[in-house]
Amino acid sequence: MGYQKAKVACVGAGLIGLGWAIVFARNGYQVGVYDPNELVRKKFKQKFRESVELLVSCGLVPSVEEVVDYVSVHEELSSAVQGAIFIQESVFESLAVKKEISHELDALINTEVIVGSSSSGIPASAFTQKCKHRGRFLVNHPVNPPHLIPLVEVVPAPWTDSSAIDFTFNFMKELGQKPVIVNAEVDGFILNRLQGALLNEAWALYEEGVASLDDIDATVRDGLGLRWAFMGPFETIDLNAPQGIADYAERLAPLYYKMGNSRLAHQWPAVVIKKAEKERRFLLREDELSERQQWRDKMLMKLLRLKEDN
Amino acid sequence: MGYQKAKVACVGAGLIGLGWAIVFARNGYQVGVYDPNELVRKKFKQKFRESVELLVSCGLVPSVEEVVDYVSVHEELSSAVQGAIFIQESVFESLAVKKEISHELDALINTEVIVGSSSSGIPASAFTQKCKHRGRFLVNHPVNPPHLIPLVEVVPAPWTDSSAIDFTFNFMKELGQKPVIVNAEVDGFILNRLQGALLNEAWALYEEGVASLDDIDATVRDGLGLRWAFMGPFETIDLNAPQGIADYAERLAPLYYKMGNSRLAHQWPAVVIKKAEKERRFLLREDELSERQQWRDKMLMKLLRLKEDN
Repeated sequence: MGYQKAKVACVGAGLIGLGWAIVFARNGYQVGVYDPNELVRKKFKQKFRESVELLVSCGLVPSVEEVVDYVSVHEELSSAVQGAIFIQESVFESLAVKKEISHELDALINTEVIVGSSSSGIPASAFTQKCKHRGRFLVNHPVNPPHLIPLVEVVPAPWTDSSAIDFTFNFMKELGQKPVIVNAEVDGFILNRLQGALLNEAWALYEEGVASLDDIDATVRDGLGLRWAFMGPFETIDLNAPQGIADYAERLAPLYYKMGNSRLAHQWPAVVIKKAEKERRFLLREDELSERQQWRDKMLMKLLRLKEDN
Repeated sequence: MGYQKAKVACVGAGLIGLGWAIVFARNGYQVGVYDPNELVRKKFKQKFRESVELLVSCGLVPSVEEVVDYVSVHEELSSAVQGAIFIQESVFESLAVKKEISHELDALINTEVIVGSSSSGIPASAFTQKCKHRGRFLVNHPVNPPHLIPLVEVVPAPWTDSSAIDFTFNFMKELGQKPVIVNAEVDGFILNRLQGALLNEAWALYEEGVASLDDIDATVRDGLGLRWAFMGPFETIDLNAPQGIADYAERLAPLYYKMGNSRLAHQWPAVVIKKAEKERRFLLREDELSERQQWRDKMLMKLLRLKEDN
């Protein structure tokens, strides 16, 4: 990181905003941080430092100071975004809040700046329609935590400028993230649609007593998930039949259709959720949740290093 | 491996049977191998040796000879299973073939032996109903390749002895596999039902042009799959809301229901499969498939070592 790179801004400095700040700062960008909550602003630097220390201990970032020095926390939104070429907005996921902050940002930016929203469900068209610079807004949806899971879903509104889409895509790549372009504002985008389909089946199997909650989890963590950690579902089936994906489809599509056809979309029933919660709290007490989240993050770091080395 | 352990048998010595033979032999069990095809029998030892060499090179098995010496290939079924305490059957997946071999084995075993079938779709009740020792048969379904992906689905028929279920479960654990009990003979058992649900959504998104094939794959390999390599879907959502799984369900169940409800089970259309195949062959030529499969297996080995070390 020899020369000083441009400035970016993180608006909303909770867990997701913190992860984004790490992504930008570890790539040498100046990061202006703002959160409407004073307490969040006050604690930000300390939390940021702790997260970076964890990355350093796993060999993913060379030193703490180098990264921490790139970040500044601001009392005012205008000062945080002043001069930024890219703003990542990660405020609370509610239509009213997203609308309000988008209009505030709209008043502060020019036609060069891009505003990516971390929105995981609300499409950009729902909160940017009346913005003057609405062509500069899009959804740029990360996975939690953004600095450990590289995938980003780039979901433009119908009126997003193609130059804003291209810039965001290339910028994410430069940062080491893995952007994918979502061509339509579908509910749940891609990632949560895929996750939802699997969860729907998992809840139904659990409800019917086909297997225990932990056995369903084991089926993924000791089975399906191992390949999916480095190959997608299409590549997996492409390598699972002698002549590839079409060969696989010919063999197995009827069986999969039969399974899917017998399974309607299904509301997770309250009584089943209660039962599942009891079973999870037996496997992991509530006061152990945060420790386990740290374990997850360490495993993700090791997995990332493994993938980078190959 | 100081003392000599009991004998087991592998009936059917294709890719899956080979993987099972490695699982047994690397744990010090004597393995009698039989396949009705002479060519398969002739080539078995060489293929077995090559696979074990790969494991040795990744540090998962200490030495080749130690493992290779445990395996013997037999010209006759009766001689392969003679004295075995456990028989893993991995013949061609067709009802007629499964029925025939099960009746042949039924005539050779006593009430102590257990026969686990690698069947990935046909339930044991469909091919063991008329066996004299039908209480000793069950499905013991691995993931490909069994020596690299530990998950095993133990799926009893309604008449399988509970002692046979218990033995199989404990035996798999002793071998270092991860057995799960499937309480009902549902189509696709658990693993393929979960995979099928995700594939159904993936094919639909691809067909609708929401994203490219490789971007859908990236959403899993750089996003969802990273956590799923060491946590199941329930643990993942349990750690993704401040108060755990019920908290998560309260926040997101309506969104997931909305997604699932808009998606019917869906036949993978031939024209879309053709398009996907073209896209895959652009990403990976057909003559590169086997090299990529070897890469996959090496990645799985490294991932397994990483998980073992943690």
